[in-house]
Amino acid sequence: MDQAELRTHLVNLVAEPDKHQLRALLAHRHIADLSDAMMDFSPKEAAVLLDLLTLHDHAEAFSYMSEERQAMIAAVMPRNDLAALFSQMESDERADLFNRLTEEQRHAVLPGLAQAEREDVRRLASYPEKTAGALMTSDYATLRAHWTVKKALLRIRLEAPDKETIYQVYVVDKDRTLRGTLSLKQLILARPDATIAELMLTDVVSVAVDEDQEKVAEIVRHYDLLAVPVLDAEQKLVGIITYDDAMDAFVEEATEDAQKSASVAALGSSFKNIGLGQLYLKRIGWLLMLVFGALFSGAGIAFFEDIIAQQVALVFFLPLLVGSGGNAGSQAAALMIRALATGEVQMRDWLGLLGREIIVAGALGLTLALAVSALGWLRGGPEVAVIVAAAMVCVVLTGSLIGLCLPFVLSKIKLDPATASGPLVTTIVDATGVIIYLGFAQLVLSGSHSLF
Amino acid sequence: MDQAELRTHLVNLVAEPDKHQLRALLAHRHIADLSDAMMDFSPKEAAVLLDLLTLHDHAEAFSYMSEERQAMIAAVMPRNDLAALFSQMESDERADLFNRLTEEQRHAVLPGLAQAEREDVRRLASYPEKTAGALMTSDYATLRAHWTVKKALLRIRLEAPDKETIYQVYVVDKDRTLRGTLSLKQLILARPDATIAELMLTDVVSVAVDEDQEKVAEIVRHYDLLAVPVLDAEQKLVGIITYDDAMDAFVEEATEDAQKSASVAALGSSFKNIGLGQLYLKRIGWLLMLVFGALFSGAGIAFFEDIIAQQVALVFFLPLLVGSGGNAGSQAAALMIRALATGEVQMRDWLGLLGREIIVAGALGLTLALAVSALGWLRGGPEVAVIVAAAMVCVVLTGSLIGLCLPFVLSKIKLDPATASGPLVTTIVDATGVIIYLGFAQLVLSGSHSLF
Repeated sequence: MDQAELRTHLVNLVAEPDKHQLRALLAHRHIADLSDAMMDFSPKEAAVLLDLLTLHDHAEAFSYMSEERQAMIAAVMPRNDLAALFSQMESDERADLFNRLTEEQRHAVLPGLAQAEREDVRRLASYPEKTAGALMTSDYATLRAHWTVKKALLRIRLEAPDKETIYQVYVVDKDRTLRGTLSLKQLILARPDATIAELMLTDVVSVAVDEDQEKVAEIVRHYDLLAVPVLDAEQKLVGIITYDDAMDAFVEEATEDAQKSASVAALGSSFKNIGLGQLYLKRIGWLLMLVFGALFSGAGIAFFEDIIAQQVALVFFLPLLVGSGGNAGSQAAALMIRALATGEVQMRDWLGLLGREIIVAGALGLTLALAVSALGWLRGGPEVAVIVAAAMVCVVLTGSLIGLCLPFVLSKIKLDPATASGPLVTTIVDATGVIIYLGFAQLVLSGSHSLF
Repeated sequence: MDQAELRTHLVNLVAEPDKHQLRALLAHRHIADLSDAMMDFSPKEAAVLLDLLTLHDHAEAFSYMSEERQAMIAAVMPRNDLAALFSQMESDERADLFNRLTEEQRHAVLPGLAQAEREDVRRLASYPEKTAGALMTSDYATLRAHWTVKKALLRIRLEAPDKETIYQVYVVDKDRTLRGTLSLKQLILARPDATIAELMLTDVVSVAVDEDQEKVAEIVRHYDLLAVPVLDAEQKLVGIITYDDAMDAFVEEATEDAQKSASVAALGSSFKNIGLGQLYLKRIGWLLMLVFGALFSGAGIAFFEDIIAQQVALVFFLPLLVGSGGNAGSQAAALMIRALATGEVQMRDWLGLLGREIIVAGALGLTLALAVSALGWLRGGPEVAVIVAAAMVCVVLTGSLIGLCLPFVLSKIKLDPATASGPLVTTIVDATGVIIYLGFAQLVLSGSHSLF
């Protein structure tokens, strides 16, 4: 049964709800497939189906939906059901949903939780979005250093049902200072009477609670961690971030960078579901700024009006020249932004990369110059060939260097290097290219009044 | 001690190798930090340091290096040491390195392995790059359905040291047909006399051995898997892909897409280490194609030479108009490419998205038209204001629709939608914009020979 068939079955079940049929359907399916198949159901329809599930499955199906979708469904659920569901969700997801509930819904769900859980929700929900605090869960297993392996395994077994992971466990003091970490694999392989202190790794890779999620994801990936512990300002353990949440953060950040690379403000929401007004607002800002940037190109052309009026044929090569500069610049910027984002390149590598870029861009410019100078010759004789070829080398070189340097400059003044988008680089390079090309043409042509 | 200090210590150790000092240095550091700190050491220098480590640590330090770097160091290692190291590496990494060794090196390392391992290396190394087969490991734990939990746990404990993960285990028949899967957590929580068949999940999410790595990574992320089993054409289990390798594949694919989005062919290597000739080749192809694309813009301008000669001031608004179309088109293309890459949008969503884009792009065009028409008025009176405003709406609308549709079209003809890069969209929209703008100007101005 594929997703389309599953969806058809679900549509029927919305019309005639039947608990047993739904469970039979899901017996051989991953619960994520249910969430996917209901993607375009109305919140009411989805709520009807979810209500047929056990509370545990309901919470799990919820976990595969976006937070926006969760909030939409929560809004149409009876208050009591929402409170029950809330108590079943994992701590990090519960806190994210909490942030999207109305004041009234919040009052409905909190009484359903134990005092400690209520505090946990409020605490987790209080961290700013896209920080380690917002990503972390408080469902992790802790041990004490003086315990034996045997005791540790017993405790882990006891606590396992409520923990998001038991495969990496953390050793803390009474005051929750992090002392070490070890894996369940180590525990299973160890002598039962060994102590945790003997086994644990004491130099633990950790992140601060206010760390940016992009950095957190990079640390999880770099060290191949199952989970990374999160410490507060006093170095106390306050949560862990598991690999799956780190992976989601990665994808979110890559999406944002892809959007910024085309001068769209980060949508912060799914492209498919974002409102039209929102989409307009995320795009118009940069477009307006870039229009005014393009005025410089226009002004450059106006400045050289005389030489153009004298030789209108010059305009033929204008798009090709400034376009090539913009394209080479976009290439350099994209390569640099991505290398900075993955941490492959640091600020200190700047000078070496500049040297390399001068060589490569020079070669690119010469190749393009060769290609278009033939065309210049055909269209206007040797003089035009020389103007076009020389301008091409200069424009490509300038464009590439602007593209390479802009992300560094932005990073230096604490802006996201991804803001050095293709359109921004192109706009800057266009204006520069106009001046280089037409300036050069004036220089050559004002000397010799040829028939060009 | 930060990375810079660690590096200084390592430089000293290269000059005077001392096993104990190196181990003391690493006692409180993650082994990945060692690999990082040696990043710019020569292969010879790195080999000297690695030789001071235990074989196990050496293999682990290796695992945090790029394959290119591993191969460079392998080239300067004594044959015997390389063979010993090879036997310690994880099966997937060993196969990747094997693919980068010379014929002579291969002959040196294979005899150090047991017959079964030799076959394993050859088998894993035979899968094409960027497929599930190339990403998978053969170090996973399998169980039989009729075993009890007690027996299963004993076996897992026995096999654990050699397995890449024991947290997700796979249930197979004698002929390696995959029957089910279960987690170590389930095993730990179960009654010791329960059978595996009672506990296992029978509907397992799996991937085919020739599946693209981008798709594999998306499946691991979507279902929050610790590992995904890989099946051959006969549905037999041939390997598993762990979350950390899936995460690396994600980053690799995002990097490639970022490069393609700026018309750079996928580098397939690190930007920092790629050779200048390679970098040139990865960039020149698209630049040349785009130059010839830009000829259409040039030809468009040449076609309207008369109207330009008549009113040179028209050229002032040219960069601004075609630029805006290109920018709006780049935005639409980037949003679409990313949504297709994350699976958020499918081919069937095309029509709905087109409708949305017409509304949003219309609004964007009107806003920009309003902004520039004032300028048109100032510079050339009401007639110019009308030409510029009308052209702006048309160009932005056309540009956006081209940007939105191009990724779909490419995807339809089995090309990577990411090829619809900003520069490509810009080049196509430029030519279209020139024709729309100047054609419109001719229409208006040839009727009324105003003083514009």
